[in-house]
Amino acid sequence: MNAPDSSNALAARSELPDLMQTLGSQAKTASALMARAPSAIKNKALAGLAALLRSQIAPLQAANTLDLQRATAAGLAGPMLDRLKLEAKTLETVALGCEQLAAMPDVIGEIIGMKQQPSGIRVGQMRVPIGVFGMIYESRPNVTIEAASLAIKSGNACILRGGSEAIESNRALTALVQQALTQAGLPADAVQLVPTTDREAVGLLITMPQYVDVIIPRGGKGLIERISRDAKVPVIKHLDGNCHVYVDDPCDIAMAVSVADNAKTQKYSPCNASEGLLVARGVAAEFLPKIGAIYAAKGVEMRCDPEAQAMLAKLPGAKVRSATEQDWYEEYLAPVISIKVVADVDEAIGHINKYSSHHTDAILTRDHMHAQRFLREVDSASVMVNASTRFADGFEFGLGAEIGISTDKFHARGPVGIEGLTSLKYVVLGQGQVRS
Amino acid sequence: MNAPDSSNALAARSELPDLMQTLGSQAKTASALMARAPSAIKNKALAGLAALLRSQIAPLQAANTLDLQRATAAGLAGPMLDRLKLEAKTLETVALGCEQLAAMPDVIGEIIGMKQQPSGIRVGQMRVPIGVFGMIYESRPNVTIEAASLAIKSGNACILRGGSEAIESNRALTALVQQALTQAGLPADAVQLVPTTDREAVGLLITMPQYVDVIIPRGGKGLIERISRDAKVPVIKHLDGNCHVYVDDPCDIAMAVSVADNAKTQKYSPCNASEGLLVARGVAAEFLPKIGAIYAAKGVEMRCDPEAQAMLAKLPGAKVRSATEQDWYEEYLAPVISIKVVADVDEAIGHINKYSSHHTDAILTRDHMHAQRFLREVDSASVMVNASTRFADGFEFGLGAEIGISTDKFHARGPVGIEGLTSLKYVVLGQGQVRS
Repeated sequence: MNAPDSSNALAARSELPDLMQTLGSQAKTASALMARAPSAIKNKALAGLAALLRSQIAPLQAANTLDLQRATAAGLAGPMLDRLKLEAKTLETVALGCEQLAAMPDVIGEIIGMKQQPSGIRVGQMRVPIGVFGMIYESRPNVTIEAASLAIKSGNACILRGGSEAIESNRALTALVQQALTQAGLPADAVQLVPTTDREAVGLLITMPQYVDVIIPRGGKGLIERISRDAKVPVIKHLDGNCHVYVDDPCDIAMAVSVADNAKTQKYSPCNASEGLLVARGVAAEFLPKIGAIYAAKGVEMRCDPEAQAMLAKLPGAKVRSATEQDWYEEYLAPVISIKVVADVDEAIGHINKYSSHHTDAILTRDHMHAQRFLREVDSASVMVNASTRFADGFEFGLGAEIGISTDKFHARGPVGIEGLTSLKYVVLGQGQVRS
Repeated sequence: MNAPDSSNALAARSELPDLMQTLGSQAKTASALMARAPSAIKNKALAGLAALLRSQIAPLQAANTLDLQRATAAGLAGPMLDRLKLEAKTLETVALGCEQLAAMPDVIGEIIGMKQQPSGIRVGQMRVPIGVFGMIYESRPNVTIEAASLAIKSGNACILRGGSEAIESNRALTALVQQALTQAGLPADAVQLVPTTDREAVGLLITMPQYVDVIIPRGGKGLIERISRDAKVPVIKHLDGNCHVYVDDPCDIAMAVSVADNAKTQKYSPCNASEGLLVARGVAAEFLPKIGAIYAAKGVEMRCDPEAQAMLAKLPGAKVRSATEQDWYEEYLAPVISIKVVADVDEAIGHINKYSSHHTDAILTRDHMHAQRFLREVDSASVMVNASTRFADGFEFGLGAEIGISTDKFHARGPVGIEGLTSLKYVVLGQGQVRS
């Protein structure tokens, strides 16, 4: 029903609730078929999708050109256009992603912890798909394939709501996904695109608990806050990444310089880049001038507490200024870092638990007790010892895929792969036992 | 601050928001201390609580008597009074529960799945407390101890909101919990009781995401629906238990009769009692008269589809009537059962997935393929083969404790024990790795 050419027919706002109900109902029906699909069939669909992505580059790029032309006419700027563009190498990357998912073991149907109980029944838990997920995302059209392929592998159905600027690309990509599903003998409705750019569709999608089990928004903080506030179903939400590196006493200074440099400067825009640097007083005099020289050379502005500022202010070429209270909360996503000297691991843990966004925080240390305490007491989705916060990523963590990074504690926490799209139900095997 | 005698001071409605903020803030502070408490200390608090429950029977019963007198004066009926009463044997049961929890292994700090990744970092997941839970429950005061002891063992803090009819009992019990916490060196604020019976307190408790991580309501469907609708934090919710037994072809008829009897009649009021009986056509003529005779003898009313009705109508003494569409959805919690003859396991699975409340459903069969399909395809929190639905229970499942039964798919599903009050955070161990 969501054929690429159907959107004009439903331009009328009044038809939108019916359209969304239909999408929901079709997704729910498809989800039951997906849940019991054999692994081989799901993998066949993924391999078929990869082949289609490679054989249909020209028509995909033709659709993409329509989006690019519209975006250019609307005055979209360079980096935004780059995100929208479907290059051949982008398509090859997502095709490879589909093949990698196909090669992964199927976690659906796995039974864990089966144990005999005193009554004689055996009780375990079976991993099953969560049902239907709704995905709301912005410009990059390759997310359409990432979400679709995760849905197929995990035995879920999904309803995709991409950015309006990518609607033609997303329609063309979704048509290929549905072709691959059909060719493998799976329901095309397992992956549906909201075929209209009407903004009201989002409000409807997030308030259909009878059809949609979870919403995954990807985009700016405003979008995610709005969705979390209005949704009537659970949301796997990723708000901000105010990540920290804490340089402990004692630590290997050369290693600390290398990791603190990488965590901030390897890329400024990802959510797992570090925004705050805490330094134990005992190593500050040795460590700070070294990292400060690197940051200065790379044009990274340093917003410091008075103690750090005193040690860094005279570095040649360094942009150093006083940090405000607000700086400790800030996710800069830019060549800016806040720096504070702390007494010890206790003060570092306290600062992080107060100001961080509970995304990813790292300690650089040689002290085993400090490492253990940091791991246990820092209340963040990913806690690290002697590694760059930039590793907080589904692929680097070995999940094989990533649909988002959750900063919540409920259900999924940290990078979310296939398991985040599943639930565990109890399985009981008896021989006629009754309760006495 | 929530001393038993403080409630009069905050009678003014205008002070309630401040009171709830204070409870929340104190719980949050306590939760950080609980999260890092050693197992031995938490177990000491649980053992101390058990000892206090045994040594303080007289003062507890004196407080309980105040509740009972007030309830009697208000015209509360027999079974409601029974639920409210703190008998010596009830106190002994919860004291034993505390000791059993103390004897269980501590799951907090456990690290699972630690694996080396291609970058050289090792990545695993650590089980940590979820933080602060709010528990909203009705008359039984022993739930206060069950919730408090689970909070202590799981390293969480909790805010308890018991029924107004049990306020004196709950105050006395909470005072003992806080005494046990203090004696063990843990923060008394780890377990706090909302010290007022003002109904507005619930609305405030469920809308403090800055302090409360999850709400667990226990009570009627209306209460739970209201809380789910208004909460601004996740809710572990248990709505209704419309559980089914499906008698397959082929099956051991004697076993099927025994289990179908137990699932319905062993107790009528629990959520895991069966409300619907589905029978494969091939065994209906043999099975239905046998179970029908038992139900008739026990006074169980049978609401049947035409086919089952034809087989049961002439049973001596049987209360048999036609089922309406609504009957298939009904949670009777009474000596009533709906009965339907189905063609096969496919129709049974279809019926259950349409009408059941996704709580607990069982197949009674000798067919391995049917059993496998039922386990995989029935979309319920607990699915069973050849066992009574009455086993769906945290203790019977070996969880050691139960704080509720979740009919959701998100986070916790089915009986919720300590693990449902925890989350998994990623732990990364490196030797100075940086991202390239």
